[in-house]
Amino acid sequence: MSKVIVSISMSLDGYIAGSNMSSKQPMGENGERIHDWMFKTKTDMDSDVIDEIWETAGAVIVGGRTYKVAISDAWRGSSPFNIPAFVITHSVPEEIVKGFTYITEGIEKVLMEATVQAGAKNIWVMGGADIIQQFINAKMVDELQINLVNVLMGKGVRLFDKINIGQVELEKQRVIDSTGVTHLKYRVIK
Amino acid sequence: MSKVIVSISMSLDGYIAGSNMSSKQPMGENGERIHDWMFKTKTDMDSDVIDEIWETAGAVIVGGRTYKVAISDAWRGSSPFNIPAFVITHSVPEEIVKGFTYITEGIEKVLMEATVQAGAKNIWVMGGADIIQQFINAKMVDELQINLVNVLMGKGVRLFDKINIGQVELEKQRVIDSTGVTHLKYRVIK
Repeated sequence: MSKVIVSISMSLDGYIAGSNMSSKQPMGENGERIHDWMFKTKTDMDSDVIDEIWETAGAVIVGGRTYKVAISDAWRGSSPFNIPAFVITHSVPEEIVKGFTYITEGIEKVLMEATVQAGAKNIWVMGGADIIQQFINAKMVDELQINLVNVLMGKGVRLFDKINIGQVELEKQRVIDSTGVTHLKYRVIK
Repeated sequence: MSKVIVSISMSLDGYIAGSNMSSKQPMGENGERIHDWMFKTKTDMDSDVIDEIWETAGAVIVGGRTYKVAISDAWRGSSPFNIPAFVITHSVPEEIVKGFTYITEGIEKVLMEATVQAGAKNIWVMGGADIIQQFINAKMVDELQINLVNVLMGKGVRLFDKINIGQVELEKQRVIDSTGVTHLKYRVIK
């Protein structure tokens, strides 16, 4: 059955990007450190985790800022996704990119559209932090996959900054102990 | 050789206690959830992790607030530790407790005294968050043991709130995948 999945890389101290994100540094200051496990120190276990996400996802959702700094500017004119991709945004950009659907009516609308497109596959909420927090607070997330990176960033963009629904219980489903990262998978108990 | 160890339980969203810590609720509001793995859901793996800390520690260091709310009030008149215990405090309390040494000259002084007492065993920096942050920022921590609990607390006392020495690289040494908690052990690279 189709699930709503968050899968994101986070430093041990809770950051998913560095400070001062911009088109020139989409991951913020020194933020690329958080993704080293996908490139510099990648193991077969890490590859499997990445492949699994792509193979099981039928649609992907990104926030407006992530789209702007990471996708629209860095990969101008083409979608990096081979599945339907949805952008939650305040206004549809003038220059639209093939493969993206722009949604201005918020997370419930985007989830409805993404669910139709995903079919039996999962809906992957990619980020940024604001969008993930909105999905968690709306109790729409079924599974939380945290790729916990062996570093303290000290500052940057926190993943869990505005969770406002009290304690959220998690059921651990899997731990993969790779080299530069620990892949944690939790079911969110609703 | 003697190492300086931080070993502490933390929710997936980075909290080591709830909000509004007091003598009546030493772990803050709902903060005892963070320690459920030691009681309610304890496995043999969890017991081994706890035993290991106690067996390898030759001295323990706590901050003034932790001492006040958790130890002086909750366990009035007796130390819960069977090893020398040091309290970092602004002033020596009127009512002193046997087994504790009160240090008013800061973390370097306390580490010096604890090192002498610990001999070849480890020095365990127990908390709270402020003291752990001071030790990390002073580059005095050799090993970080995080017992990562399957819950989002939403609010409370964050462990990594004031790390101000830039990125701190960690080398993962061990992952123990228990039921309610994941025991992560890292060497701090200096």
